[in-house]
Amino acid sequence: MRLSEICKVLKIDCDLKSDIEIKGINTLQDAKKGEISFLHNPKYAKFLPTTKASAVILSKEYKDKLPKGVVPLFTDEPYLKVAILSKSFAKEPWVDGEFYVDSSAKVDKSVRIGKGAKIGKNVVVMPNVTIAPFVEIDEGSVIYPNVSIYRDTKIGKNVIIHSGSVIGSDGFGYAHTKDGRHIKIYHLGRVLIEDEVEIGANTTIDRAVFGKTIIKKGSKIDNLVQVGHNCEIGENSILVSQVGLSGSTKLGRNVVMGGQSATAGHLEIAPFTTIAARGGVTKSIKTPGVYSGFPLMPHKMWLKLQGILNRLLKERS
Amino acid sequence: MRLSEICKVLKIDCDLKSDIEIKGINTLQDAKKGEISFLHNPKYAKFLPTTKASAVILSKEYKDKLPKGVVPLFTDEPYLKVAILSKSFAKEPWVDGEFYVDSSAKVDKSVRIGKGAKIGKNVVVMPNVTIAPFVEIDEGSVIYPNVSIYRDTKIGKNVIIHSGSVIGSDGFGYAHTKDGRHIKIYHLGRVLIEDEVEIGANTTIDRAVFGKTIIKKGSKIDNLVQVGHNCEIGENSILVSQVGLSGSTKLGRNVVMGGQSATAGHLEIAPFTTIAARGGVTKSIKTPGVYSGFPLMPHKMWLKLQGILNRLLKERS
Amino acid sequence: MRLSEICKVLKIDCDLKSDIEIKGINTLQDAKKGEISFLHNPKYAKFLPTTKASAVILSKEYKDKLPKGVVPLFTDEPYLKVAILSKSFAKEPWVDGEFYVDSSAKVDKSVRIGKGAKIGKNVVVMPNVTIAPFVEIDEGSVIYPNVSIYRDTKIGKNVIIHSGSVIGSDGFGYAHTKDGRHIKIYHLGRVLIEDEVEIGANTTIDRAVFGKTIIKKGSKIDNLVQVGHNCEIGENSILVSQVGLSGSTKLGRNVVMGGQSATAGHLEIAPFTTIAARGGVTKSIKTPGVYSGFPLMPHKMWLKLQGILNRLLKERS
Repeated sequence: MRLSEICKVLKIDCDLKSDIEIKGINTLQDAKKGEISFLHNPKYAKFLPTTKASAVILSKEYKDKLPKGVVPLFTDEPYLKVAILSKSFAKEPWVDGEFYVDSSAKVDKSVRIGKGAKIGKNVVVMPNVTIAPFVEIDEGSVIYPNVSIYRDTKIGKNVIIHSGSVIGSDGFGYAHTKDGRHIKIYHLGRVLIEDEVEIGANTTIDRAVFGKTIIKKGSKIDNLVQVGHNCEIGENSILVSQVGLSGSTKLGRNVVMGGQSATAGHLEIAPFTTIAARGGVTKSIKTPGVYSGFPLMPHKMWLKLQGILNRLLKERS
Repeated sequence: MRLSEICKVLKIDCDLKSDIEIKGINTLQDAKKGEISFLHNPKYAKFLPTTKASAVILSKEYKDKLPKGVVPLFTDEPYLKVAILSKSFAKEPWVDGEFYVDSSAKVDKSVRIGKGAKIGKNVVVMPNVTIAPFVEIDEGSVIYPNVSIYRDTKIGKNVIIHSGSVIGSDGFGYAHTKDGRHIKIYHLGRVLIEDEVEIGANTTIDRAVFGKTIIKKGSKIDNLVQVGHNCEIGENSILVSQVGLSGSTKLGRNVVMGGQSATAGHLEIAPFTTIAARGGVTKSIKTPGVYSGFPLMPHKMWLKLQGILNRLLKERS
Repeated sequence: MRLSEICKVLKIDCDLKSDIEIKGINTLQDAKKGEISFLHNPKYAKFLPTTKASAVILSKEYKDKLPKGVVPLFTDEPYLKVAILSKSFAKEPWVDGEFYVDSSAKVDKSVRIGKGAKIGKNVVVMPNVTIAPFVEIDEGSVIYPNVSIYRDTKIGKNVIIHSGSVIGSDGFGYAHTKDGRHIKIYHLGRVLIEDEVEIGANTTIDRAVFGKTIIKKGSKIDNLVQVGHNCEIGENSILVSQVGLSGSTKLGRNVVMGGQSATAGHLEIAPFTTIAARGGVTKSIKTPGVYSGFPLMPHKMWLKLQGILNRLLKERS
């Protein structure tokens, strides 16, 4: 898409010395030459001076922070503009065409496979599974019935995905208009599932806005778990049933999250941390240990708190 | 179904002056001529004198409250009788027959469509979706793989439904016998999803007992959310992942419900209210604001409570 | 599988007087002649002297507790060895072959049915359902679209299963290596659903490790509920939406679990007990009643506690 077209789509007056081709949208840190980026949250302003983006959507006050040669697109509502633009860069969720299935793979006749997908050696795909375009499933993985895998998802070796799970659905992201409407941010990223991961039934793993949602090697996820966009689950982590991870949560290796526990978004949990069942994580955890409660506290403190409440009940009744 | 037959099915002695055809079951308020209604919960007795129903199942004590000409069916267990009768009025969940797909729609060859369904202009329906009889999907909507849409559901324009979601499943309603069995109330209503709604992956939206469950224009629903029968979600509302709404909950416009928050049934939430993550709503909310906790309280009060508990922990350890 | 082979797979030095054929793995209590068992949790050591197993994987310290003639397989990591061995006994999740559909059943043409499955009289199976090998569905049951039923599941009469639900998926069980990896315990058991059960949409019911997960007659389960491996749900129990039951939980008859309530594993709940919405059960309940909160307490006590917290809020602000 030409930059001049983007300016037109976004209804922004651009001062273009030369028109260039824009290949994608990305964050300030990750954008490469030929991509457009944006500044919405002031805390990312520090990435402006070093961004490699060719153009940036931002408000006028940051004008002087942009590297020379980067084209500014000025607006009072940069996030809303990104949402509008994301639609132009969204790929077709389904395209028919040629795909590759290894001769040793067992793919049920009812399975639908999109263009450019690759199914590796000894992979088993059971009935009524849908594998969208450009999905790759590596050696020895097993996909149970009625699983849906969205486009561009990459699945490693010896992965097991149980029935009804959805891998790569759009994350829950919207820009909001002044009159209270929500404008969809099309999710241009994808999901990467590494080797030896197992995913239970009816679990949902959202694709990234840009970049990837990653489930690292050897992690095990139970049924009905929600993994938000851009999460990163460390190696050998365990998510028990009905866990909910908000977007951009980052778990270190061997983190255990008990049943129905959950996290807010954009936080990190140290390796080898255990969150007890129902724990609600609202801040990053830097010290490994066992944590409980909502708001979260060290498990021992939570036990003490329950003791105190018990005594209150006795004293005051 | 003739009224005399209904009396036979329900094993009620009816005093029928003339037999009439009964076309459906409905609430006292909404019943039209030719429909049968019932009184179970005494708080609805006020609707008896003005009901338009042609017959009413109720206990003898309300005998005198019925308008003239309305046929009473007396019983000690009206709700149980309604449950039994609901089965007689339930429509076949699946019927094959002619349906309509606009020539501009892209419907995958694996999609199954029931009798009388209508797929509008530029609609996209991806693989392994099931569209039951008499479903209508309006212009520009996109249905991702493995979605199930039950009969009579109506979906507006530019709606997006992600994989694995279920629209129009029966609500969770039973009448209970004296020996502890649960008799299914067949759900005769439907689901209406208005324009510009987006529904995440593996979410479930139950059909109404009678009437409709409604998701109003521009609302956005995340993954793994439960919307109970007869709910009404106001315009531009936001339901984050793993939210659970019990039956007959009514949200005003621009309500936000955080992750894993939930409501009891038969309550109303004022427009522009925010329920924080994990909030549990047990009473109607009349004043917009931010609420937290379970039981629910204003968010500021919840923060104060956490501070108090923290101090208790210090004082008492 | 010959015992000598098992020793080789597990890399255990066995002192075999005669090699025997091992037909399966089972618990110490349930193992029959020709099966192999194991001792991992010391609390089950009491079952060693009376086990009928032909061989037992265990650590050397229990050497003298084994009945005469039972072959010991000594190891320091019995659970890990069982996990490794479970893979050898796992059956193919999907096999094509002959199956039986009663002539009165209505099975949609898109339904995939595995080898040896039996579909009984007047059963209705809607589009895009997957019925794995050796599943049995008895008279009058109705399976809505996109349901997945894993192999060996047995479903009684007049059962209703709503769209997207998954019956018989592997439970969430792993043995852990010293370096923090998780070795899958293949689930060799199955799910049994008795007559008149109804299961909502997108609910998941895991198969047993060995033996059965059982949903007893007349129980009703709402949407998005998780039932862990080896659970037993008593007759006419009610599980409201988003309930989570950990593995080996045993509910008596007519237990009611409110929305989003949950249990830890390996516990029992007395018949006619009600757990209020959000209740978190961490210990067995012996006395029927209404319970609330997390940690769980009698509902009246929970109400009192909320009153106390309220007064604290007033006193201390």
